[in-house]
Amino acid sequence: MQVDLNADLGEGFGPWKMGDDTALLGIVTTANVACGFHAGDPQTMRRTVAEARARGVAVGAHPGYADLAGFGRRAMPGITASEVEALVAVQIGALAAICALEGYPMTHVKTHGALGNAAADDEALAMAVARAIRAVDPGLGFMVMPGTATERAAERMGLRPIREIYADRTYADSFNLTPRAQPDAMIHDPAKALERVLDMVTQGRVVSTSGKVLRVGIDSICVHGDNAEAVAMARALRHGLEAAGISVRAGG
Amino acid sequence: MQVDLNADLGEGFGPWKMGDDTALLGIVTTANVACGFHAGDPQTMRRTVAEARARGVAVGAHPGYADLAGFGRRAMPGITASEVEALVAVQIGALAAICALEGYPMTHVKTHGALGNAAADDEALAMAVARAIRAVDPGLGFMVMPGTATERAAERMGLRPIREIYADRTYADSFNLTPRAQPDAMIHDPAKALERVLDMVTQGRVVSTSGKVLRVGIDSICVHGDNAEAVAMARALRHGLEAAGISVRAGG
Amino acid sequence: MQVDLNADLGEGFGPWKMGDDTALLGIVTTANVACGFHAGDPQTMRRTVAEARARGVAVGAHPGYADLAGFGRRAMPGITASEVEALVAVQIGALAAICALEGYPMTHVKTHGALGNAAADDEALAMAVARAIRAVDPGLGFMVMPGTATERAAERMGLRPIREIYADRTYADSFNLTPRAQPDAMIHDPAKALERVLDMVTQGRVVSTSGKVLRVGIDSICVHGDNAEAVAMARALRHGLEAAGISVRAGG
Amino acid sequence: MQVDLNADLGEGFGPWKMGDDTALLGIVTTANVACGFHAGDPQTMRRTVAEARARGVAVGAHPGYADLAGFGRRAMPGITASEVEALVAVQIGALAAICALEGYPMTHVKTHGALGNAAADDEALAMAVARAIRAVDPGLGFMVMPGTATERAAERMGLRPIREIYADRTYADSFNLTPRAQPDAMIHDPAKALERVLDMVTQGRVVSTSGKVLRVGIDSICVHGDNAEAVAMARALRHGLEAAGISVRAGG
Repeated sequence: MQVDLNADLGEGFGPWKMGDDTALLGIVTTANVACGFHAGDPQTMRRTVAEARARGVAVGAHPGYADLAGFGRRAMPGITASEVEALVAVQIGALAAICALEGYPMTHVKTHGALGNAAADDEALAMAVARAIRAVDPGLGFMVMPGTATERAAERMGLRPIREIYADRTYADSFNLTPRAQPDAMIHDPAKALERVLDMVTQGRVVSTSGKVLRVGIDSICVHGDNAEAVAMARALRHGLEAAGISVRAGG
Repeated sequence: MQVDLNADLGEGFGPWKMGDDTALLGIVTTANVACGFHAGDPQTMRRTVAEARARGVAVGAHPGYADLAGFGRRAMPGITASEVEALVAVQIGALAAICALEGYPMTHVKTHGALGNAAADDEALAMAVARAIRAVDPGLGFMVMPGTATERAAERMGLRPIREIYADRTYADSFNLTPRAQPDAMIHDPAKALERVLDMVTQGRVVSTSGKVLRVGIDSICVHGDNAEAVAMARALRHGLEAAGISVRAGG
Repeated sequence: MQVDLNADLGEGFGPWKMGDDTALLGIVTTANVACGFHAGDPQTMRRTVAEARARGVAVGAHPGYADLAGFGRRAMPGITASEVEALVAVQIGALAAICALEGYPMTHVKTHGALGNAAADDEALAMAVARAIRAVDPGLGFMVMPGTATERAAERMGLRPIREIYADRTYADSFNLTPRAQPDAMIHDPAKALERVLDMVTQGRVVSTSGKVLRVGIDSICVHGDNAEAVAMARALRHGLEAAGISVRAGG
Repeated sequence: MQVDLNADLGEGFGPWKMGDDTALLGIVTTANVACGFHAGDPQTMRRTVAEARARGVAVGAHPGYADLAGFGRRAMPGITASEVEALVAVQIGALAAICALEGYPMTHVKTHGALGNAAADDEALAMAVARAIRAVDPGLGFMVMPGTATERAAERMGLRPIREIYADRTYADSFNLTPRAQPDAMIHDPAKALERVLDMVTQGRVVSTSGKVLRVGIDSICVHGDNAEAVAMARALRHGLEAAGISVRAGG
């Protein structure tokens, strides 16, 4: 049994840093790299890819809304599928070029923040993301939330789905994430997070807060590195997975 | 005898337009498309590529400095070759992705404004641009100013040089453009512009304002479309070239 | 009987222009000047204030969302009153400083686009705008849509309301504008626009598309200058108002 | 004998933080607050002013170039006095409005980074800054580098000069800072920094690295908070000043 551990990296901008990328690169097996729209800039992208390559961590594009000030977490009601298609394509192309400069393959695409939430709920936006991926490189994996529109779009477009779960978030009955504003959205206790993750990975299922069950194979687990606690949880998860006999490897 | 006519297009941003792209697409054979850093955004890039494709106009990336407010025309002293490499790669990759979405090939790269001026004068920056191009796609042409560092960089890196001249600008003895601030920098008279262009194309040479001569084959002529006068000059040039028996075709 | 004619000006950014400010400055009596967040930059702001001063046109701040690419027309669900307060204050302060540089008084504040729509519908956001105005200068007028939350906020905060109507837009029963996406949102016929405006100004009322009537004194009429047609309509309105014996003067 | 301790605060942007503002607010007596162009945004500005007010720390505007990605540290050759005037005015006005919202006075203006360097060397730019300050509020102090163009501009425009020295930087013979790129530009040893500062404050002089001496009263000492070391140095300086019997108070 094996699983991938992924995290969002390269989310600084210009002089500003975000999270502890160096620590995370020693824990995760896959990095989703910001592409300059919600975070990131050409130098940050390049440095992140170079560091991931040095650590043997797989690299994918992490496109988001064009919203630095809001970090891509603000909803953009009314954005069209055509806009999303161009927005995502440009960001994948940008990271593909950085990977080419660094001589390191790009493996996948994962949408960020409010774009990811919208695509998980809206078939037209999910299909727009999938079309953008396929147009740039049909060999790229599409990291999706199982049970949502993104998973269906990956399948419909013939893209390899990478089904991911979140270690520190709970699920609504739509199998989208419980919104951060709700009290039970986040899991802060590493032991509880590990227990949930082990259940989801070994039983092949996602369970919503109301108890609804989705049977699905889990390819990857998303962890965070925003602060020292998050990094500690990520480390504990990796150790816990390995202690349970699960191999932690890129590629899902 | 044949020559290409190129112009910078897609230089709007968000709600703002720049120049008369529609008119120019009926005149030129090659479009250099802004990539979102000095101008352009994903929707503008896509619309521009789609319109170029519909008119059979060849498309290349037109990377510039990350400076919307200054339109990429402000010098950035101290920018490093490593920064230029990442900056240019990201922009080429972005347009490559848009071309992939539109199913239309990208043919070349031409640097914009202050980045172009810096690369023409500075071997390290010119080589950085060439490395970025080669990393993303070694089949792309590199539109260069003959006699400058960009031409040498194209040759050294094994990229196909597309040697261009400017219809409405004069040349310093370095064969870089006379800076816009100088009184004799611009040519406003279409008849004079045509005469100069015919001389350069048919005689295979560039002549500086002081009379210095560079013997070189001309592949492409750059025209502008900022206002009605510029569009009229571009149209007059195309007619004049064809009247002189020179075929106007993409690819140089 | 007198009325003010207002228009949004200074909505360029960096190298880009928007609308025909010079033409409008010959028609309107009040200019709402963009403050660098949805459009505008320090140089554009200054040039616009200087030109307004030269023509004797009154000047106010026109704050919008921090969204250049979307021109401040995209909704920002979830924005808080506290965020709006700071966002609006900063923009009023910026234009106040430009007016100080030009030695010309700033007379009022009018919110732009999606921020204006949100404030018209949402008491908390309308009050946030009013608090920002009062904090910076309680002598500033607050240009409001009669019958909406902005009018009530002006009254509650003791600010001078400048009740404006739109010459080329229709009204919903909330007396907010009919959304642009709806077929009957815009009025394109200058004669029809003039007829409506004369009715509203002379009868002291706003009428929604369903026939709902609001009795209210009209202080100002908003016109646009995005294109030649809009400018022509603005000019026709001014002539029509004056022909009807209504004095067109700043200040409402 | 008394002196002010100042630091640059509020230099985050959107989701990103910079330096340890909370620690610095417990050490310094004056905060220079970024105004949204090289760093800062309306919410960050407001939070910073509110925290400064709560700690009784004086607040001034810290305008910089419009260059988030370069943090206002990149030179802008060719920027004109007119551009600087508008750029600085807008930023002072923005912070003035935030101070008005918070009911806390703004005391002064200090230019940031490359703008500060340029103004210290160039009389026209220094005068442009001074004109912007005087236009917005002639009662504001102008924090200047003694012996440079900014000091002369303050005097010529009748603004109150606040003569500051840098605790962790050395001086060229122009009495501008030694450029960061040079090996002896920075002072990392807190004991050495304190010794220098005590000499400058008590003797009323600045000494360049080559030994050139400027006799001048020192009003304020600039400290930094970029990292734990910088904060420790700031704290050591405050203690050292007080131990030497110098009162550390806002206002210089």
